[in-house]
Amino acid sequence: MVKLGFLGLGIMGSAMARNLLHAGFDLTVWNRDREKMAPLTEAGAKPAESPADVASTCDITIAMVSNPEASHAIAFGKDGVIEGLSQGKGYVEMSTIDPQTSHAIAKAVRAKDARYLEAPVSGSKKPAEDATLVLLAAGDHALYDEMKEAFEAIGKLTVYLGEVGQGSAMKLVVNMIMGGMMAAFCEGIALAQANHLAPEDLFAVLDAGATANPMFRLKGPMIEQEQFSPSFPLQHMQKDLRLALALGEICALPLPTIAAANAQFLRARGMGLETLDFSAVWKAIQTVKP
Amino acid sequence: MVKLGFLGLGIMGSAMARNLLHAGFDLTVWNRDREKMAPLTEAGAKPAESPADVASTCDITIAMVSNPEASHAIAFGKDGVIEGLSQGKGYVEMSTIDPQTSHAIAKAVRAKDARYLEAPVSGSKKPAEDATLVLLAAGDHALYDEMKEAFEAIGKLTVYLGEVGQGSAMKLVVNMIMGGMMAAFCEGIALAQANHLAPEDLFAVLDAGATANPMFRLKGPMIEQEQFSPSFPLQHMQKDLRLALALGEICALPLPTIAAANAQFLRARGMGLETLDFSAVWKAIQTVKP
Amino acid sequence: MVKLGFLGLGIMGSAMARNLLHAGFDLTVWNRDREKMAPLTEAGAKPAESPADVASTCDITIAMVSNPEASHAIAFGKDGVIEGLSQGKGYVEMSTIDPQTSHAIAKAVRAKDARYLEAPVSGSKKPAEDATLVLLAAGDHALYDEMKEAFEAIGKLTVYLGEVGQGSAMKLVVNMIMGGMMAAFCEGIALAQANHLAPEDLFAVLDAGATANPMFRLKGPMIEQEQFSPSFPLQHMQKDLRLALALGEICALPLPTIAAANAQFLRARGMGLETLDFSAVWKAIQTVKP
Amino acid sequence: MVKLGFLGLGIMGSAMARNLLHAGFDLTVWNRDREKMAPLTEAGAKPAESPADVASTCDITIAMVSNPEASHAIAFGKDGVIEGLSQGKGYVEMSTIDPQTSHAIAKAVRAKDARYLEAPVSGSKKPAEDATLVLLAAGDHALYDEMKEAFEAIGKLTVYLGEVGQGSAMKLVVNMIMGGMMAAFCEGIALAQANHLAPEDLFAVLDAGATANPMFRLKGPMIEQEQFSPSFPLQHMQKDLRLALALGEICALPLPTIAAANAQFLRARGMGLETLDFSAVWKAIQTVKP
Repeated sequence: MVKLGFLGLGIMGSAMARNLLHAGFDLTVWNRDREKMAPLTEAGAKPAESPADVASTCDITIAMVSNPEASHAIAFGKDGVIEGLSQGKGYVEMSTIDPQTSHAIAKAVRAKDARYLEAPVSGSKKPAEDATLVLLAAGDHALYDEMKEAFEAIGKLTVYLGEVGQGSAMKLVVNMIMGGMMAAFCEGIALAQANHLAPEDLFAVLDAGATANPMFRLKGPMIEQEQFSPSFPLQHMQKDLRLALALGEICALPLPTIAAANAQFLRARGMGLETLDFSAVWKAIQTVKP
Repeated sequence: MVKLGFLGLGIMGSAMARNLLHAGFDLTVWNRDREKMAPLTEAGAKPAESPADVASTCDITIAMVSNPEASHAIAFGKDGVIEGLSQGKGYVEMSTIDPQTSHAIAKAVRAKDARYLEAPVSGSKKPAEDATLVLLAAGDHALYDEMKEAFEAIGKLTVYLGEVGQGSAMKLVVNMIMGGMMAAFCEGIALAQANHLAPEDLFAVLDAGATANPMFRLKGPMIEQEQFSPSFPLQHMQKDLRLALALGEICALPLPTIAAANAQFLRARGMGLETLDFSAVWKAIQTVKP
Repeated sequence: MVKLGFLGLGIMGSAMARNLLHAGFDLTVWNRDREKMAPLTEAGAKPAESPADVASTCDITIAMVSNPEASHAIAFGKDGVIEGLSQGKGYVEMSTIDPQTSHAIAKAVRAKDARYLEAPVSGSKKPAEDATLVLLAAGDHALYDEMKEAFEAIGKLTVYLGEVGQGSAMKLVVNMIMGGMMAAFCEGIALAQANHLAPEDLFAVLDAGATANPMFRLKGPMIEQEQFSPSFPLQHMQKDLRLALALGEICALPLPTIAAANAQFLRARGMGLETLDFSAVWKAIQTVKP
Repeated sequence: MVKLGFLGLGIMGSAMARNLLHAGFDLTVWNRDREKMAPLTEAGAKPAESPADVASTCDITIAMVSNPEASHAIAFGKDGVIEGLSQGKGYVEMSTIDPQTSHAIAKAVRAKDARYLEAPVSGSKKPAEDATLVLLAAGDHALYDEMKEAFEAIGKLTVYLGEVGQGSAMKLVVNMIMGGMMAAFCEGIALAQANHLAPEDLFAVLDAGATANPMFRLKGPMIEQEQFSPSFPLQHMQKDLRLALALGEICALPLPTIAAANAQFLRARGMGLETLDFSAVWKAIQTVKP
């Protein structure tokens, strides 16, 4: 059986590693903060000393860390993944990173005659726990095929999108549509309120029609109660909108609706709301009365 | 049993009238073009000579015509509804009309000691046939209560929104959110295509996440095939966006995301796409290559 | 010599009437508030009892009132201009009014076999006093020719734009460009400040280049000092932007830059700044810090 | 007398170098393409072999090249400026470069105990020839003082803006305002045309009022004739708008009017107009008729 390694046991990573264990995989784990490894090793995972240790002892190593900088460090740092890789081994980067970082890692992995797959995920804590993530894979197709069973253990849908970078691009497209929907939603709630329509009536009507979607259903009542504890922080959404607009710039593609939505998220950042949930853009969209 | 009248047997009206018949209502119908009355009278409805005729012989008269002008004509014209109304009778205007027209009709109805309810619907041909419309009622509450059974025969959800004008306002809010979502969706498809991502992969990913909604599911493949036979014409969506922005102007509420979306729909109108489905905004959003 | 009548002696009208007197015209004046007539009659103007009185005793009557409602009242009210007009007389409406009102007055004037010219002005108090207004004339061309000398006494440029309504349309185009420039200017000042660049350095650089214009030169320092006593109230600019966007809707012409600028002015209105100068849009454009 | 060096003899640089010669400066010149040096050496300038040669033989070296890459190469390349600098010498970078490149050069210059000033210019070919450029200086203040006479020989206004990077930032602010003005102007021309108003009447009215500026005066007639030979290429304006928006992102400052204008310029790029003058954004703003 294939030996899997897993690097990064934060909120997302620990849930995903647990689901791999449940599915019966031979799993070796590592986390910068060693204490977070205990629950997994108690559940049957083998502990490792470093990313290099994981990469050299496993057939395929998965990484799930919090940002491009962490991803870069885990790959290129001392005792990092690149050191541990050798011919034929696989490295699957599932963190959300920019195409540049993904390309840099891919190049280093290939220089070791190893194989690289990026597979950023769409979905947050709950879908990670429920094994209902959506995986946006791109890179080595043979490695993708070998990961089939593992991907099924952590997600409900995996799409293969082509060359390295295409997974990140798809994630930006999806998040930018989500950001545009949220801005349109909040502008609608504001217009409803300004016309003395109850937000809950609006939510009921939206949920009964062609616009019905889990995001409005979940976030609507939280917006009404101004309950903004972060499941996807506003600053991350604004960054994704910026990166999507930048992707559009490269293709000479104007995205004016998204640019306007981005300005609303930026206004929210300027109001100091960047660490709240991205639905807190509501605060920037409501009219300010003197 | 309450005697119901129904004015306007177009695509929407004929489906709604048929559902009222199926539910066992005593129904009298009238349509400007008499030929369209035949299928309904064959199914058991009584024919009438004029809107006034319907209004004077029925307890409650329902109108479902295509625009504010037709709504105005059917109410105030010669042999119109107002002529036929008398004390205690009810008039339920379900056409999509602007608040001004609705208020004018309400005033005239009340001057005859009759009762007025506006109940514009959210949903198009299919939901009308399937009796799954969403009804946005506002006005006389007692009349609303009396219509309960009839509304259940044609829709899956009815909300009561308060004073005359609130139904129309809710409809504008819902349609403006729908228009904003469509613009964000098309900008996303364009960005995906420009980055060599297959639209069907995007649709699959969107449909597996928090953004999943019937509109994207239905319209996505039609956009990809540029199949734009109208179920909700683009010019009507653009008009609703304009009216929603105008409602925002009155409340000093900026709606910049919607204003940007509206510009995309206007561009589509300028390209001569106004009679196609509103998803044809896609054609205005794609980059024009030289 | 042609006998001129002048209706409306507010800030603009009194300055214009005075310039006509200075140019030697035989002038009859009227104002709703009679006290404002004294300075003009002391300077040589003849007083009149009503708009109808002016219209019947003068060859050509000029109106300069504050809004479409006042314009409508002065024309159609009891003892209004229409009552006093007769064959061959001229009516020159210089108030800023919408095309609909202008068309309605034109029709009534022609029904009396009299002639109508609209000539809204570009410019505010100072240009009115200095006789440097810009006049946007449209309507009866013979009347336009007869007004040549009078127009020269109050303005520095008169353009003849064709049919009734074209003068109002030009005014909206000019004001919408002005509003767009002001929004771009304020966004630039905000970006300068956020980067620790002194606004006065920005003003100096703008004034030395291709962008140099009287508006930036005048308003820049006032914005820096947040001195917003109104010379052109913000609510009027926002209304003109709305009307320009509405004109674009009719022609299926998207104006997204102006729509975004309009949202900034609307935001300012929502902040309660509507009676300040239109440069107070600055307050809505500055970032809000927590 | 101070010995000046000049690197880069393109359209801008050759005009500036010529003005320095006319003002009596002792000038040494270098250009990658040696043939372009001839007109200057014939007029009295001394030829040099390389940027290092200029930097080592002159007290102060000025660079005026076409983009950040050329600027980087001329400084850091073999026989580059950095090689030639020594204690107390000055380097004045007048090319339009991004703050990052400017900071990198500044650091290297200081490492040689030399002094650095950035001084990007506002203005194009004509102002360069007429010595009416606007200079946006930032960096070493003593060097700025020493350059006073030289700056007066090539420009009509020099502002000192503080630390390295502030000159570039000011240039972006100025160009972004210019881009916003151009978009508003073109949207206005389009609205005028759609309402059968002659563009030349609009230009006359704008030029007689508070909006009068050299850019509208020059570009208006060229837009009307669709004469777009580049004096400032559209792709450069779009890039500057993008960089200004990016500067806003860093400060959490939304710039929605500029974002909407940027989308119009991007649309123009998508239409293949990137090498034309930036006023060719007109082509993207006009309505497309089917």
